[in-house]
Amino acid sequence: MKSPLSALGQRTAPPAISWLMSLTLAHPKLISLAAGFTDNASLPVSEARAVLDDILSTARTGQPALQYGSTAGDPLLRELTAKRLTELDERAPARAGDLQSPPEPSARKNAATASRRHRVQPLSPDRLLITHGSQQLLYLLTEALCDPGDIVLVEDPTYFVYLGIAQSHGLRCRGVRLLPDGLDLVHLEQVLEELRRSGDLPRVKLLYLVTYYQNPTGYTTSFAKKAAALKLLRRYERFAGHPLYLLEDAAYRELRFAGDDVPSALVAPGGAERVLYAGTFSKPFATGVRVGFGVLPEPVLTAATRIKGNHDFGTANLLQQLLARALATGAYERHLAELQRRYAHKARVMTEAVRAHFPANVEWREPEGGLYVWARAPKRLHTGPKSRFFQTALKQNVLYVPGALCYADDAARRKPDHEMRLSYGGASERDITEGIARLGKALSQ
Amino acid sequence: MKSPLSALGQRTAPPAISWLMSLTLAHPKLISLAAGFTDNASLPVSEARAVLDDILSTARTGQPALQYGSTAGDPLLRELTAKRLTELDERAPARAGDLQSPPEPSARKNAATASRRHRVQPLSPDRLLITHGSQQLLYLLTEALCDPGDIVLVEDPTYFVYLGIAQSHGLRCRGVRLLPDGLDLVHLEQVLEELRRSGDLPRVKLLYLVTYYQNPTGYTTSFAKKAAALKLLRRYERFAGHPLYLLEDAAYRELRFAGDDVPSALVAPGGAERVLYAGTFSKPFATGVRVGFGVLPEPVLTAATRIKGNHDFGTANLLQQLLARALATGAYERHLAELQRRYAHKARVMTEAVRAHFPANVEWREPEGGLYVWARAPKRLHTGPKSRFFQTALKQNVLYVPGALCYADDAARRKPDHEMRLSYGGASERDITEGIARLGKALSQ
Repeated sequence: MKSPLSALGQRTAPPAISWLMSLTLAHPKLISLAAGFTDNASLPVSEARAVLDDILSTARTGQPALQYGSTAGDPLLRELTAKRLTELDERAPARAGDLQSPPEPSARKNAATASRRHRVQPLSPDRLLITHGSQQLLYLLTEALCDPGDIVLVEDPTYFVYLGIAQSHGLRCRGVRLLPDGLDLVHLEQVLEELRRSGDLPRVKLLYLVTYYQNPTGYTTSFAKKAAALKLLRRYERFAGHPLYLLEDAAYRELRFAGDDVPSALVAPGGAERVLYAGTFSKPFATGVRVGFGVLPEPVLTAATRIKGNHDFGTANLLQQLLARALATGAYERHLAELQRRYAHKARVMTEAVRAHFPANVEWREPEGGLYVWARAPKRLHTGPKSRFFQTALKQNVLYVPGALCYADDAARRKPDHEMRLSYGGASERDITEGIARLGKALSQ
Repeated sequence: MKSPLSALGQRTAPPAISWLMSLTLAHPKLISLAAGFTDNASLPVSEARAVLDDILSTARTGQPALQYGSTAGDPLLRELTAKRLTELDERAPARAGDLQSPPEPSARKNAATASRRHRVQPLSPDRLLITHGSQQLLYLLTEALCDPGDIVLVEDPTYFVYLGIAQSHGLRCRGVRLLPDGLDLVHLEQVLEELRRSGDLPRVKLLYLVTYYQNPTGYTTSFAKKAAALKLLRRYERFAGHPLYLLEDAAYRELRFAGDDVPSALVAPGGAERVLYAGTFSKPFATGVRVGFGVLPEPVLTAATRIKGNHDFGTANLLQQLLARALATGAYERHLAELQRRYAHKARVMTEAVRAHFPANVEWREPEGGLYVWARAPKRLHTGPKSRFFQTALKQNVLYVPGALCYADDAARRKPDHEMRLSYGGASERDITEGIARLGKALSQ
């Protein structure tokens, strides 16, 4: 008998990191610098308890939290999220000329704060879709936009679960080189030009960027680069014959502990029409409370909302109410400030250990947010799962994510195989220090 | 410019009931007997509060609830769910000969309880996948099994959101007549035989049944019919060339308030290999706490789990821990007993009103569980959205779900258009009585 599975069912590969997880189970003493878990100690246990206790203390607030809601999401949560995102974009430093002007030019009375805060078009809650983590949004957008054989442009390297979604849907990925301030625009143009010449541009649907403290590199894309990428995509639309979207995955945006915030691509010229913004409350609040959101233009918003209706009619209301109340009462903001301090500390623990133990020929950068340090060994040192180095590290009971896992299958280049993603998110300070020391020893051998 | 949407994105229609929901918004005084909402007053506000307070009272239990879990779901919840389902199937009355014997024949010491409780093979938690409501499971299974153009067999009538998923995926549906004790087996065989003759059987993937207090009819499928359907599907597999699954949607199973439970198709001969069981805790506990589950054979389990990993890496841990603890402490069971009493009462309120106000030529049955009464008017009375009757009801500020919405598009028959789904789930007792009285008046006109 043949397989009963669909093309998608047969195609969908095991997650890239499932074997890493099985290694963790097989080696109970393992120090995992591989897991993308958030810091356990700083999870908002008492905050969540207080907020939930409050919601569930009366039938008036408790019943709606335990009842179905709408597919698009809780109206208050959408309102608070839109407001918050507008404020983030207003506060993030940018040269005024870079931003799309709001239709009513800013009044004189705003002039006093203009140096620190520029005016952006307030985001309408109607453009938001609340999802079961921002991961679900990435999935919905893939479903809404991409047919098998379609092409998505991704950063080299990029978030490997997105690559899993693309693989599952039979998409082709083209990698665009990533620099510390965002993707290499010259390379992006070159890739678009190649696709135009080969006649493949009509199959291109979007450019996927993890713009803040990227997973896996920790790099942040500058606002100028977002705006330039949007412009470039717009230029190639006439060859594609349809809109080319910039999918901005801002999952780590709020985990910032150094440097400045950067405005989202939503406020760049053309951003309202062409940016698919994926945000989340899971990482900054609690990964066990899976609430993400999208800010989407039509017709993508309607399509994604309908598909979401078929998935689950809407994200669990209890989780949405928890977030809405945490935002409304300031509990979210207080917890976030604490979390940022905590990650700043853990990042420092890791970079101090790296500085002390890694040989000088390994390149890395101080992260300014997020959960990751990206380390590049000399090219001759392979870090892949079957490499001697990986096996040595494993014998020393240390696990990292081999860099090659974070590169799309793209025949146009070989996957680099000399990098590592090191996470300080889940591991304890002691494990971070000890794990990095062991890796350093292995690197020096 | 062309649409940027994928084939699925372009195809996905608005939900069948979105216009019903918009009517609810447009008529604020409307009595809605259409919504599938559960009863607000009986939502477990204080129970959920106590359980969450307990979980979040210590870091030891609170942190894991707020952290990522595994894609398949919380191990304790899977264990408790498997145990519970095994017990339900053991307690449900069935003739011993109907059931698949467990590999080790039941020991003598069990003989004393044999009359009330038969032994079934204990379900392994490894066969379970926890999902964001059982709706997500229906979606995952469609993705894992069905390509555009594939065929699914459904009950006539059936759950309209499943029809929405099928529509979105470009599937063809074939309706099988439904009788008060489950589908018409003669018709099922006839449909299978037609599909064999037309060469379409290789496109058939599954038979979808809502087996307990069906949405929309309230009918329950007898165990004998489930076993017979499985056998029939098995017989046609050699023409299909692949397994033909029975997708058993048991969403309303625990909302039983009269009559006996029925064993699941899982314990019928061949059930372990060919039944895809969809269960949920959302309806019996709280619809705002979206936790469903599947019991699946390979290769469907692995495929669905991988796809779920791409959707969201796993259902929000906080919701899973809430359910696991509610199950472990007995809070779930206590609430369920109360809920069953509550729905028994509301069903009685509705059926008493129907008995008092509906003309004798309208057929309906006393529900024994679930949320719905299915009313069949004489065929000449049309109930569809554009019918005079629907508009009269609307003018009287009463809304129901037109029966035609619950029938798949199937060229082999006309959609019946003289039925109504009436829900006592969300409406208050007063609204139920008043709404039914108004409908009765309109029916008599």
